[in-house]
Amino acid sequence: MAVYTEVSEDDLDAFVAGYDIGGVLSLKGIAEGVENSNYLLHTERGFYILTLYEKRVNEAELPFFLDLLEHLSARGLTCPQPVKNRAAQALGRLAGRPAAIVTFLDGMWIKKPDARQCAAVGEALAKLHKAGADFPGRRANALSLDGWTQLFESVHARADQVVPDLSAAIDAELGHLHANWPASLPAGVIHADLFPDNVFFLGGKLSGLIDFYFACTDAFAYDLAITLNAWCFETDGSFNITKGLAMINGYERVRRLEDAEVAALPTLARGAALRFLLTRLVDWLNVPEGALVKPKDPMEYVRRLRFHQSISSARELGLLR
Amino acid sequence: MAVYTEVSEDDLDAFVAGYDIGGVLSLKGIAEGVENSNYLLHTERGFYILTLYEKRVNEAELPFFLDLLEHLSARGLTCPQPVKNRAAQALGRLAGRPAAIVTFLDGMWIKKPDARQCAAVGEALAKLHKAGADFPGRRANALSLDGWTQLFESVHARADQVVPDLSAAIDAELGHLHANWPASLPAGVIHADLFPDNVFFLGGKLSGLIDFYFACTDAFAYDLAITLNAWCFETDGSFNITKGLAMINGYERVRRLEDAEVAALPTLARGAALRFLLTRLVDWLNVPEGALVKPKDPMEYVRRLRFHQSISSARELGLLR
Repeated sequence: MAVYTEVSEDDLDAFVAGYDIGGVLSLKGIAEGVENSNYLLHTERGFYILTLYEKRVNEAELPFFLDLLEHLSARGLTCPQPVKNRAAQALGRLAGRPAAIVTFLDGMWIKKPDARQCAAVGEALAKLHKAGADFPGRRANALSLDGWTQLFESVHARADQVVPDLSAAIDAELGHLHANWPASLPAGVIHADLFPDNVFFLGGKLSGLIDFYFACTDAFAYDLAITLNAWCFETDGSFNITKGLAMINGYERVRRLEDAEVAALPTLARGAALRFLLTRLVDWLNVPEGALVKPKDPMEYVRRLRFHQSISSARELGLLR
Repeated sequence: MAVYTEVSEDDLDAFVAGYDIGGVLSLKGIAEGVENSNYLLHTERGFYILTLYEKRVNEAELPFFLDLLEHLSARGLTCPQPVKNRAAQALGRLAGRPAAIVTFLDGMWIKKPDARQCAAVGEALAKLHKAGADFPGRRANALSLDGWTQLFESVHARADQVVPDLSAAIDAELGHLHANWPASLPAGVIHADLFPDNVFFLGGKLSGLIDFYFACTDAFAYDLAITLNAWCFETDGSFNITKGLAMINGYERVRRLEDAEVAALPTLARGAALRFLLTRLVDWLNVPEGALVKPKDPMEYVRRLRFHQSISSARELGLLR
């Protein structure tokens, strides 16, 4: 569920009156997303998504995200496009929260993606990397090496409650990654969270990307490593190399990986698996009493990390050279 | 949150292909309602609400509800209108559940209704009673006297955990209501759950009624008693007679209450308060581990019941004669 903040009709009317989108006809909470409150807003001009940013979001970073969406939209990438108010601002305040209105994007996310869809996602990811090339905003990746070390420190004493010897395994992996993490790969804006529920398809074609709230400045190949992790494993935990090949091929149709990126891909894939393992572990061990959102199982990423630890080259992820 | 059943894209496409509403463009879970899974469905023809009926709903009763919506729509009442498929059926199956598509209704529900809005609701309720007069369907009210007795039996041993001596108070009230419940008042289709979140307003005017899944055949004045309970108490627990007067006046502008209904109104109001006290008490005492929905506080209706026990005529609810 994703409605944490209730909005009164008067407040909403006043907020929407600041935009050139007509009067409010309807507002319905959407049961998607876990960080913010999302509403479907119907006005005399059409349908929009209204987002109220909740306290886990750093307000100072919101202009980065909204500017990025505008930049990518202007370059033909289909993503939610911020609607500016009469003061030419994309970010406002509603019910005591930072709030923004973005365009409504058609399409549905795929619960069981096939190789063809993995190829489309690889292609879209490379287009995103290219479209972001001249974006002036910068945002450090808070969930890279140093962030992982901090996350681990907050849970290392309890990690073995989830899987025996998990704490020692993460500690060793962090040591490996600190020693082997590649420096100076081609970098720019990355999505950093391109899971299936953030990619829409319509009539068999990829129709848009959403949820850019982990976007940051980091290595392009790391974004590909995250996306390979998110799309190419089967529910039994095995890596589907056909999907990996399709995704990497799709990516390279738009942007060819450099040799250094190819060499680094297995290490980046280990890092990406550890990143989601750690955030899930933290959420798992810190479920608040009466929580409305069930945390995702960290075990899935323990298994993915083990797979990446077992491979020696990007060929085992599907790269054909 | 109200998405209990996930729908695959293929299943959805096949289901929607049975209707004359174009192809699927988007489907978003709606964070409203607690009994069923509700989705906002966008197709090439427009926006609709897709409902998947979950197991607490008796499938055999669904035709009553859907036929009623169609009947009321045809008589000019603004409520969700079932969309029939190519086989002229309003009820289908999707993801193993009974499912229906209804029209999307604009408007917003009012969190803090004023007397003017209470008047509009009273008027709409009377219009509903008149529009349902020639509806041939019948459905017994499962939540009347006998149903309350059964609910009480399931919780009487634990009721005092919530409020001291509550069990004895409910027992005595059930005795009073069994002895005094009016027989043979004017009856027909009633909504039976017309709370503020089931009434939409748009531009200051009542724009539609939703959620007819408690609708049944019972006394019209009992429906008014439920609605007085739902709208005319303040958050401090006091009855707002200005709102009560506005609602009853609004009702009588469309349908004048008979003398027997006026005489019975205080008793009906006690019964209505007990009905919601009991269902809330049952929910409160039976919250499943890891529940996604927080139950509503039964205390609110303990206080309302006490108010109704203290009055002696419908004048104290706002009736002017």
